[in-house]
Amino acid sequence: MRLNSREEFLRLDTEDPLASFRGQFDLPPQLIYLDGNSLGAMPRQARNRLAEAVSQWADGLISSWNDAGWAEAPIRLGDKIGRLLGALPAEVVVGDTTSVNLYKALSAALSLRRGGAMLTDEQNFPTDLYVAEAVAKKWGVPLRRVPRNQLGEAIQKGVAVVTATHVDYRTGHMLDLRELTKAAHDAGALFVWDLCHSAGAVPLDLNSVDADLAVGCTYKFLNGGPGSPAYIFTASRFHSDVRNPIPGWFGHDHPFDFDSGYRPAPDARRFQTGTPAILSMAALEAAIDLWLTIDMGLVRSKSLLLADMLIDQVRWRCEGFGLELASPEEPATRGSQVSFRHPNAYGLVRALAEVGVVGDHRPPDIARFGLTPLYTRYVDMWDAVEKLSDVLRRRTYLEPRFEVKVGVP
Amino acid sequence: MRLNSREEFLRLDTEDPLASFRGQFDLPPQLIYLDGNSLGAMPRQARNRLAEAVSQWADGLISSWNDAGWAEAPIRLGDKIGRLLGALPAEVVVGDTTSVNLYKALSAALSLRRGGAMLTDEQNFPTDLYVAEAVAKKWGVPLRRVPRNQLGEAIQKGVAVVTATHVDYRTGHMLDLRELTKAAHDAGALFVWDLCHSAGAVPLDLNSVDADLAVGCTYKFLNGGPGSPAYIFTASRFHSDVRNPIPGWFGHDHPFDFDSGYRPAPDARRFQTGTPAILSMAALEAAIDLWLTIDMGLVRSKSLLLADMLIDQVRWRCEGFGLELASPEEPATRGSQVSFRHPNAYGLVRALAEVGVVGDHRPPDIARFGLTPLYTRYVDMWDAVEKLSDVLRRRTYLEPRFEVKVGVP
Repeated sequence: MRLNSREEFLRLDTEDPLASFRGQFDLPPQLIYLDGNSLGAMPRQARNRLAEAVSQWADGLISSWNDAGWAEAPIRLGDKIGRLLGALPAEVVVGDTTSVNLYKALSAALSLRRGGAMLTDEQNFPTDLYVAEAVAKKWGVPLRRVPRNQLGEAIQKGVAVVTATHVDYRTGHMLDLRELTKAAHDAGALFVWDLCHSAGAVPLDLNSVDADLAVGCTYKFLNGGPGSPAYIFTASRFHSDVRNPIPGWFGHDHPFDFDSGYRPAPDARRFQTGTPAILSMAALEAAIDLWLTIDMGLVRSKSLLLADMLIDQVRWRCEGFGLELASPEEPATRGSQVSFRHPNAYGLVRALAEVGVVGDHRPPDIARFGLTPLYTRYVDMWDAVEKLSDVLRRRTYLEPRFEVKVGVP
Repeated sequence: MRLNSREEFLRLDTEDPLASFRGQFDLPPQLIYLDGNSLGAMPRQARNRLAEAVSQWADGLISSWNDAGWAEAPIRLGDKIGRLLGALPAEVVVGDTTSVNLYKALSAALSLRRGGAMLTDEQNFPTDLYVAEAVAKKWGVPLRRVPRNQLGEAIQKGVAVVTATHVDYRTGHMLDLRELTKAAHDAGALFVWDLCHSAGAVPLDLNSVDADLAVGCTYKFLNGGPGSPAYIFTASRFHSDVRNPIPGWFGHDHPFDFDSGYRPAPDARRFQTGTPAILSMAALEAAIDLWLTIDMGLVRSKSLLLADMLIDQVRWRCEGFGLELASPEEPATRGSQVSFRHPNAYGLVRALAEVGVVGDHRPPDIARFGLTPLYTRYVDMWDAVEKLSDVLRRRTYLEPRFEVKVGVP
């Protein structure tokens, strides 16, 4: 169904059950921000929670580790995020970065399934490839890289651990979490999922698909703030055996006994290592508490509708300007972003930013637009395409100032 | 020289060249805080820097990675901390936790010196022992644990890597960094130092002692905030060969090229892994900027004087109550804390906290008091001992509410 006027988009916004959530975020009023899949917008409560944490530091000092719940923050936040992931209490813990957590998860998986190869998508996010390669090498197992669309058939006997990013960062292509996890299990392997572009973007139910291990960041769709701590999930059935390759005092069963021997905590807490970053966690907790009030089904429906509209409007109003859909046509295999290929994708994204539409570029030729239903409006799709069409028509993306490539995470 | 009255301490404060720095911290006015070796007090500027970072997030969104210098924060902060450590630019990078950085440093050291054993102080900080054990096991090399005072003689041929904490967390005993580094080099080994209780506590000059690798936290004497990011130092002579065992995109030479192959940054930046925790770093940078205005020689002199006074006053006014000095008598082998043994150390620390003197307890029998010359006053030594003596005399530390042991980091 094509909408033909800005008014029709505005009407959808007035009927949107999620519309009120935009007011919970602090956003530049004129900006169309379609980069919440890189860095989510700031929940207004984050400012208050940070101020609170700073006061706990100034006034409570060391006693805040107990009195303000700092020491429990990683598991408290883990449990909250676990509710978004479909995990049980004590299966998720927050801390470190996604890369470090992936290192832990892959090592832990290899220690549970010894003797086979590691398998991954060759177009996986770079850090995932670097970490997979380093872990495989250290464990002395081969790392097999296959095209993303051949991952399923490559899961065969002899594979011990499979790892992939559920939603691809370039195209938004979403793998079938249930089917691939089952394929891994049928082959005697474990699957370690990277959920960076999934949590807060698409509904997840890790326990129902019998997931093994997973990691993810919290600064994209979850709005935790720049570089907010990551999380790691391990199914409770592994809790008696699974090992953290970087054992640290916060993962000890009783950190403050200061034992010289390591005795891991009985559950996902063993994946903690060092002292948690409390200030970053304070902002993150504000974001997660907001998420816990939200119906993920509504988020997914709106995300799919936004995507359909963006794709449709681009086809209609930017026809003949060389944009090619890089995301899947099929909504069921798409996360919460829409990507296009264009020979000048970098210049295009930069020129768009100058007129108030923020997306981002991923080499070599992808312009991607994140859809974050909590603060993206339907009318943003109309307005963004209007500006995109104008940039394409006026060819401003070819201007010399857009030639220098400066990347952003 | 014994001071016999509170007035004499007050006079020292009026003559203290560091006295004005206390005003830069937000401290509860009546509190005598002798736990800055666990969690440093809050520099007032930290609140402003955090507010600034939050605005960069809210208003600049993704563009702040470039425009607000977020992407460069780990090396910018590393260089600043490097000046406190006596390191060259690009030898220090900030990020992750001390435990994770120690894991990296020990693995990196073993890959530079293959085939020998790892050696450590058997009373090293617990997380250091856990990490050393895990790394040694994964590398298939033996881990030798010796008493701290036998570390020097245990550095022999066949040892590849030595690791120890420069200033012991229980007693404040300080090893000779120069001598032990030299001993390691003479044996063909590398030394990986943990400087958690050193930076901001005692003068350091890593380059002048030919140090190899080092790690440390920033939330103790450096006042970076609860769980603020740690740092890792690698001497530039290793930069062409040294490897980060957890290679991640932020340690790549060009992270935003999104290369599928890892190519490490040319210097200490290669020890980065995932996305840096910007909010925590904002508070930390406020603290480090304050440190860069301070003469470390003055800090050390005042620290030693505070320690002498605390020891002397305790001997004088708490005689016969079972307190035994656990810290070295010799100032040159002491960091910036004074520890006493007492059979009821835990109750003692808790009872003291109730009357406004915060120190901390380390099992089994240590009561430790951190001396932080930027905000600890001479008169605090008089007042603290007055309250300690009162607690000892009235035996309030034996009250039942002090029996439950609750640890703090």
